[in-house]
Amino acid sequence: APPLPEGYAFRAVQKSDYTNGYIETLKVLTTTGDISEAQFHNLVQHWETHSHIYKARAITDASGKIVATGMLVVEKKLIHSCGSVGHIEDIAVAKDQQGKQLGRILIVSLTALARDAGCYKVILDCSEHNKPFYEKCGYKHESCAMVVRL
Amino acid sequence: APPLPEGYAFRAVQKSDYTNGYIETLKVLTTTGDISEAQFHNLVQHWETHSHIYKARAITDASGKIVATGMLVVEKKLIHSCGSVGHIEDIAVAKDQQGKQLGRILIVSLTALARDAGCYKVILDCSEHNKPFYEKCGYKHESCAMVVRL
Ligand SMILES: CC(=O)N[C@@H]1[C@@H](O)[C@H](O)[C@@H](COP(=O)(O)O)O[C@@H]1O
Ligand SMILES: CC(=O)N[C@@H]1[C@@H](O)[C@H](O)[C@@H](COP(=O)(O)O)O[C@@H]1O
Repeated sequence: APPLPEGYAFRAVQKSDYTNGYIETLKVLTTTGDISEAQFHNLVQHWETHSHIYKARAITDASGKIVATGMLVVEKKLIHSCGSVGHIEDIAVAKDQQGKQLGRILIVSLTALARDAGCYKVILDCSEHNKPFYEKCGYKHESCAMVVRL
Repeated sequence: APPLPEGYAFRAVQKSDYTNGYIETLKVLTTTGDISEAQFHNLVQHWETHSHIYKARAITDASGKIVATGMLVVEKKLIHSCGSVGHIEDIAVAKDQQGKQLGRILIVSLTALARDAGCYKVILDCSEHNKPFYEKCGYKHESCAMVVRL
């Protein structure tokens, strides 16, 4: 992975991140809706309680503010000798932070977390437009992501 | 969903299913490796402990034997007002049970479980070859599934 810019750090998302750029950064990816501080605390609590499954991570800038986000979900399966699969989700980089390779650093870091957790593979869904980025990160287009909206 | 054949049932996977066709059915999908009874118990225990996240399901035939499998993983996110996404995984139908629409019943049933759990969407990965089947189940090809094998 390329190095983080001076003063930047990769770390777990915390309850104290409610007004620290996490929600704002995710708005680059999709809609977040209104989220109260209590809802945010409950969600981070849920992720922390199940920290062997959910690994919510962020990159902070030199001031400590979150400027990029990513989630690894570790799924325990029966196939592949009770193997695990990592799901990379909710990758977002703040608009004014593009060009610093933060997206690439996130993917490499989350993939390393998946390896440490013993996953035999990691999967993620992306648009046709973002395919070249993930290919540069070592990912291959193997199958179709199908969706139904409820 | 089409009706299940007479005597067939859709139910949760149980610890007592070790020699009841679950592992055998999954061999249609991919490699399972050797799995001891203790490993199987631990895995089902893990799924049951986190039953709000893992919903391992099966279809049994009139004799009670498992002939089809499917998993729903419910992921709690921040986006979409702390929304949840369902992941359908490990769909397998025993070779001698094809033509009974068991695959379709699994997908419809797991999608309904996801709706009950409040998911705003359900996603799954499939080969180009299986796309028409999932389209008949109401799924759309929206994006690319990328993978890295570790
Ligand atoms: C690799 C990556 O970050 N993929 C994301 C996915 O994790 C996220 O949940 C989704 C939100 O889109 P939605 O608002 O249409 O559900 O967008 C992208 O597919
Ligand atoms: C909808 C569905 O059932 N998709 C399955 C996926 O859940 C399973 O984990 C994988 C195993 O393949 P692998 O052995 O190459 O990991 O095959 C398919 O993509």
